[in-house]
Amino acid sequence: MPDVRPHAKLTHEGALKILHAALAKAQEIRVPQCIAVTDDGGHLLAFVQMDGARRLSQRSAIRKAQTAASNQAPTGGIPAELEVKLALATGGAVVNLKGGLPIVVDGQLVGAIGVGSGTQDQDVEVARAGIAALSAATPV
Amino acid sequence: MPDVRPHAKLTHEGALKILHAALAKAQEIRVPQCIAVTDDGGHLLAFVQMDGARRLSQRSAIRKAQTAASNQAPTGGIPAELEVKLALATGGAVVNLKGGLPIVVDGQLVGAIGVGSGTQDQDVEVARAGIAALSAATPV
Amino acid sequence: MPDVRPHAKLTHEGALKILHAALAKAQEIRVPQCIAVTDDGGHLLAFVQMDGARRLSQRSAIRKAQTAASNQAPTGGIPAELEVKLALATGGAVVNLKGGLPIVVDGQLVGAIGVGSGTQDQDVEVARAGIAALSAATPV
Amino acid sequence: MPDVRPHAKLTHEGALKILHAALAKAQEIRVPQCIAVTDDGGHLLAFVQMDGARRLSQRSAIRKAQTAASNQAPTGGIPAELEVKLALATGGAVVNLKGGLPIVVDGQLVGAIGVGSGTQDQDVEVARAGIAALSAATPV
Repeated sequence: MPDVRPHAKLTHEGALKILHAALAKAQEIRVPQCIAVTDDGGHLLAFVQMDGARRLSQRSAIRKAQTAASNQAPTGGIPAELEVKLALATGGAVVNLKGGLPIVVDGQLVGAIGVGSGTQDQDVEVARAGIAALSAATPV
Repeated sequence: MPDVRPHAKLTHEGALKILHAALAKAQEIRVPQCIAVTDDGGHLLAFVQMDGARRLSQRSAIRKAQTAASNQAPTGGIPAELEVKLALATGGAVVNLKGGLPIVVDGQLVGAIGVGSGTQDQDVEVARAGIAALSAATPV
Repeated sequence: MPDVRPHAKLTHEGALKILHAALAKAQEIRVPQCIAVTDDGGHLLAFVQMDGARRLSQRSAIRKAQTAASNQAPTGGIPAELEVKLALATGGAVVNLKGGLPIVVDGQLVGAIGVGSGTQDQDVEVARAGIAALSAATPV
Repeated sequence: MPDVRPHAKLTHEGALKILHAALAKAQEIRVPQCIAVTDDGGHLLAFVQMDGARRLSQRSAIRKAQTAASNQAPTGGIPAELEVKLALATGGAVVNLKGGLPIVVDGQLVGAIGVGSGTQDQDVEVARAGIAALSAATPV
């Protein structure tokens, strides 16, 4: 087995492209949102809090992205009997709200987007629109 | 779209007026309370802990105000299936107890009041009395 | 004394304009940066971490903006004998590194920008370029 | 030795009297302040953040009061070689900035006041004016 393996990294240009596409969708559906894009390690690459968004959704938007990056899967699918256990075990880092999606390019996780302040379905719609702006990204 | 938009700020005089009116109501109904007034960003503007109030209600009173400010709505209305998810996702910041009310002037959120230590209905009654002292504020 | 006073709020459009102007300057001088724009209460409105920026500068960039917003002044001017005392007294929130600048429009503090990952002079240069994009903002 | 001993408690009326006297002094000298009054255990009894005060001084004002209550002495007198050790050992709770004063009645510590956002001398002046409003309190 090799000591290092090739991997793709999301650039800040890519992160901002996703951010602005998500923002455009949020404006189109008239839902003020907090939108966060992280790298595959969960570190914040780009963020915007729209006028009128819930301020406390800043935290949940970032945590949704971090959870999606960590799980390499959309957020919100943790079985009910596990959600509190996992949240407690990770100091609240793992959230179980919809609105976090992994960003996958050529089968590699390069980051995640987390959206919060709308309904969970609105959050997902905005997150999807963000990822759709990255032509190489796998739709989620 | 403009870079800045006009907004109103609650003054400390306004915050203290609300605090004292809430305090007077709590004394009238003989329920010792913790009473917190924040700005629209959730920062504490004025606070009082009455003699005999539950000390740990200091935290919940402040969090009620912060949740009401963030949601721009009275606290306590989060559906049961979401309340733990939202609390976990925000590190406990989002609370689902009655007693937090947004302070709205001319259609603009300028802050919030949070009251804790009584029953939830008593907390709401005291919070409402606080807001009623601000003649320009929208009754909640 | 009035209960509320008029104030201006930085919109997300304004915050993103500042962010992109700062980003352009950082690209021009070829220094990867973390760039944060907050409102006047220190809440994050917009953020970008450039490719190659120091990851831990995310924290300091945000704290620089929050310190500049709180002090309503550029960061880095705290006298040496006070800097540790103030950092300790605020749980590390008050930082004394250059690179945080208040955003003032018509004499009102509407937010702040914080830049970190370059030298302090580079951070200030990038922050200034950000503010310069807001035609109504007072140069700092 | 008895199992319990008599002690005086600062009422919320007393705390608010101190708060408003400190506020009046801050307005007189035209320095926006954060003002906190705690009980002898360091629990917040009353608080106000004046218009234009540094937001991050909320924390330091409360910690000054808590440090003064804990030390039963004015803050700011910790020897230089101890101040970092004590701050680290207490998770930042012990601060070494002037502006915290114990409230002593008939030789008993009943609480403390902490003031922050001005210069340290202004903070002390405002704190003293607060305590002076309590006729029974020992001047500090």
